[in-house]
Amino acid sequence: MSAERPAALYERNKAHLDAALKACETRSYWSPFTESPSTSLHGPERPAEGKARFEAMLGRRFDLDQPGTIGEVGYEISPYTGKTLDVRYPKPDPQALFDAAKAAMKPWQRLTAEERAGVCLEMAFALEEQAFANAHATMHTAGQAYLMAFSGSGANALDRGVEALTYAYKALKDVPRTADWEKSFGRTGVVQLKKQYRIRARGVAVVVCCATFPLWNAYPAVFANLMTGNPVILKPHPNGILPVAMAVKRMRETLTACGLDPNMVLMAADERETPITIELLQHPDCAIIDYTGSQRFGLWIEEHCADKLVYTETAGCNGVVMDSLSDPEGLIGGLANGLCGFSAQMCTSPQNIHIPAGGVKIAGGETLSFEEVGQRLADTIVKRTEDPKRAAALCGAVQARQSIDLIEQVRERVKAAGGRVVLDSRPYEHPDFPGAQTATPLVVEVEADAVDLYGEEVFAPVCFLIREPSREAALQNAATLAAERGAISSYLYSSDRDFIEAAQDAFTDAGASLWINMDQRMPINFAAAYSDYHVTGLNPAGNACLADLAFVADRFRIVQFREPVPAEAAQ
Amino acid sequence: MSAERPAALYERNKAHLDAALKACETRSYWSPFTESPSTSLHGPERPAEGKARFEAMLGRRFDLDQPGTIGEVGYEISPYTGKTLDVRYPKPDPQALFDAAKAAMKPWQRLTAEERAGVCLEMAFALEEQAFANAHATMHTAGQAYLMAFSGSGANALDRGVEALTYAYKALKDVPRTADWEKSFGRTGVVQLKKQYRIRARGVAVVVCCATFPLWNAYPAVFANLMTGNPVILKPHPNGILPVAMAVKRMRETLTACGLDPNMVLMAADERETPITIELLQHPDCAIIDYTGSQRFGLWIEEHCADKLVYTETAGCNGVVMDSLSDPEGLIGGLANGLCGFSAQMCTSPQNIHIPAGGVKIAGGETLSFEEVGQRLADTIVKRTEDPKRAAALCGAVQARQSIDLIEQVRERVKAAGGRVVLDSRPYEHPDFPGAQTATPLVVEVEADAVDLYGEEVFAPVCFLIREPSREAALQNAATLAAERGAISSYLYSSDRDFIEAAQDAFTDAGASLWINMDQRMPINFAAAYSDYHVTGLNPAGNACLADLAFVADRFRIVQFREPVPAEAAQ
Repeated sequence: MSAERPAALYERNKAHLDAALKACETRSYWSPFTESPSTSLHGPERPAEGKARFEAMLGRRFDLDQPGTIGEVGYEISPYTGKTLDVRYPKPDPQALFDAAKAAMKPWQRLTAEERAGVCLEMAFALEEQAFANAHATMHTAGQAYLMAFSGSGANALDRGVEALTYAYKALKDVPRTADWEKSFGRTGVVQLKKQYRIRARGVAVVVCCATFPLWNAYPAVFANLMTGNPVILKPHPNGILPVAMAVKRMRETLTACGLDPNMVLMAADERETPITIELLQHPDCAIIDYTGSQRFGLWIEEHCADKLVYTETAGCNGVVMDSLSDPEGLIGGLANGLCGFSAQMCTSPQNIHIPAGGVKIAGGETLSFEEVGQRLADTIVKRTEDPKRAAALCGAVQARQSIDLIEQVRERVKAAGGRVVLDSRPYEHPDFPGAQTATPLVVEVEADAVDLYGEEVFAPVCFLIREPSREAALQNAATLAAERGAISSYLYSSDRDFIEAAQDAFTDAGASLWINMDQRMPINFAAAYSDYHVTGLNPAGNACLADLAFVADRFRIVQFREPVPAEAAQ
Repeated sequence: MSAERPAALYERNKAHLDAALKACETRSYWSPFTESPSTSLHGPERPAEGKARFEAMLGRRFDLDQPGTIGEVGYEISPYTGKTLDVRYPKPDPQALFDAAKAAMKPWQRLTAEERAGVCLEMAFALEEQAFANAHATMHTAGQAYLMAFSGSGANALDRGVEALTYAYKALKDVPRTADWEKSFGRTGVVQLKKQYRIRARGVAVVVCCATFPLWNAYPAVFANLMTGNPVILKPHPNGILPVAMAVKRMRETLTACGLDPNMVLMAADERETPITIELLQHPDCAIIDYTGSQRFGLWIEEHCADKLVYTETAGCNGVVMDSLSDPEGLIGGLANGLCGFSAQMCTSPQNIHIPAGGVKIAGGETLSFEEVGQRLADTIVKRTEDPKRAAALCGAVQARQSIDLIEQVRERVKAAGGRVVLDSRPYEHPDFPGAQTATPLVVEVEADAVDLYGEEVFAPVCFLIREPSREAALQNAATLAAERGAISSYLYSSDRDFIEAAQDAFTDAGASLWINMDQRMPINFAAAYSDYHVTGLNPAGNACLADLAFVADRFRIVQFREPVPAEAAQ
């Protein structure tokens, strides 16, 4: 191992780390990555070259050189083409992966916090280099639209990774490497001790990635673990292997180029029919679990893997409380975007819209009735989705067939319960991929007491207009659901400052964050690295936050030595 | 609530907080408390007045005004007199305590980090004010000698509390209260958001105190919890209620004097025959557990209460590796002190002395045989304990009858296994308390393969001289025991720098801290606040460290609000 290299990478990336530290402190916007795929920024060749790189990977064995391979695995279906990508990945022997990771962990411990940061930042920029290819890989596994796949699964995801890296750096730097200590002990006089502190990693981390955002949560977990000394085995979703494999390959290349053991980062892929996740999580050598996915499995892990460090980010039923609309077009427009965006397959997508039966006030003293609010929302959704090009850019494709089935089930259940379909879902014709699995949002009207219909996440483009007795009841119901069923992003529309404050208190008690009067100028559910604490950890939608000190501080421990300063050396 | 008061307390104590922050950073010695009970510092009256205060509490109902009292409880025996203190404490209704704590938690959330620090530091100084009375209460419950009860359970314990307070302050201050965020969103232009971040406590913490150091670990847990917003129910050991009751009463008085709800700090006492600990720990309203005590119960809690945040500090079998003795008198003298100190009833007391069968080198090239090392150690222990006054100051009393029984059991088991008693234990005659339960250390010689004899903590003044094939074998055995059975403080005596480094690596791998060549100028097992990380959390002797960021960062979470800046206000 050439010790200079990581130190040189630190020097090269130091300005970024300093800027990231500053961003964490001020929580203002910052990014060293290019968010837009525009050819005016990248030139005309890079997008095409990225697409070609993606296409060259299809229909063959993915070239991932890692230990413990005992065969081939992988069966991914593109939500855009309905066809298999036909890429085969290493089928792993889990024990061999854990052994390789543990062997890699030992020399990695010797790197300083600065050196680790240098290597990890280098990885982040190496990952950005393949942002175009990654965008296509993300489209054809997760179903994201091109723009989201480029920015949301590229720069924005890397931002979250660098944010976690930065928190880990802060936590590591809180521990000095040495100290001089002296104290008077009565008659024996002053004793001087030389103390040394060593950062000690926990062990191998298994990072479970989700289907619809393969890397957005994975990068923070990977960098938090690497920074604190823990090797990582990434477990992709069976339909989201390619983006993870590309990232793992690239990170391993960076490690190798630094003269480091690439087995600090490994991948364990599987297929739906022969899953290996539980085996990995319950493996005695697994010390840390970072999980993104369904609430059900997340809670199972929290309960059954409690002997490991467990960090989860799952889902809830995100609520919207409607009180009054100072700017109906902008606010309903923002909400419609949120309902359509990536076909509501985001953990931050709104689902339950709690509307007082008496309607909502708008500017000028008028009131929109409950039905008018629903109709305006439905009309806006229709406007957003009638042009296939616009629909494609906004909605992308639906990752799982189960989500399409869910739409059908919800429609029938709502009708059976006496609810009303305000806007039906329909597949839109994708301009580039005629066979794409698509669905516009289903909007249904239900009574407040029909909690069994809307009281948990429906992972599909489905939105409930919930008729509430009053705004207070709307707030109470939304906050209670957040507390009991979980919520990652909740929304409030109100121009009454007292009601906003009451809502803030109610959501604080519920342990849920609240976005207020978010309009259509930006995606209402955008979660900004360095600024928005993602997941509170106080409700069933996950126990960890991207990113705070709690996300990193327990991933390492401290071993200490002390020794008296010899009398001749002591002053 | 008068909001000015906590802010004023912050101003009054700000210099201490700043100094504590500095001490955490440099890890050098600092204390705002008076460690010595000397009359030259305190005047002649305060020691006597403290003793009188203690005596005035005996034989009556303890005046602790807290909610949920359903009777009286308490049966403590003084290890010095063998008699009951006959103090009766409130017998609690657990649900009423949790309810009171939850009610107190709500207004407490409104205090800033500065205000909380002000209140907690005020509490710490109020606790110091009763250091003399606490010393007597600690003596007659825990069995500590007067000096240790004054400094170790007074200033030194408060130091650890303020250290945890300071770490919590750092973690809280890492989260800003507000932020201004702006970002360009393509064609819509720049969007500005105003963001607010609220610290949110977890819930009620139950702090389980141990018998021999009722407050040393309790103060850090109490202050870490209060700082992060969590109310505390202290659960004293059935024979260690009085010091805890005094502390709880004093902390409640400080809260009341600030106009705050005193139910942020409550006590739940019990008796050995009718324990309530498990009921408290498994209560649905218990969110956090801080536990100090036996390894067995600590591991039980980690396994069975994994749905709570669990912080444990338990015990291990602390090893001593002997390679060479540059200063035999000073080093063996230090070790003898460590074996006698508080009759080895400390989680940092050495127990297993791993000595090469071929002996250990001393300065000048000579070698002390295995037997000579043991004999010198035994002779030094005899010298330390033959004068009853000196024995009393060093050994104190033995808290539990079970520890006396353990000495007997070890002696018989060792003999039956073919081991040898090098120095037998005996009760020494205490100069002030003729009936005191006392015991000088038992020193026995065993073979390295007799791990069943020495492979777990013997909570009694018992020390094993373990005949090892070589120094390497000694190191290996000690490090393995530390990793597998737990260790809080391990010790090495060597003047060979290469061997010291090998030992540091071995103990790093074992996840255990190592004190090297500690001589008799200070207590070898003294753990210094702000400097020595106490417990690594990497072996079975506990999962938490006093104090690091991991000890505090997860005790609170963050709830966030965000809202666009209105167009007219935006720049």
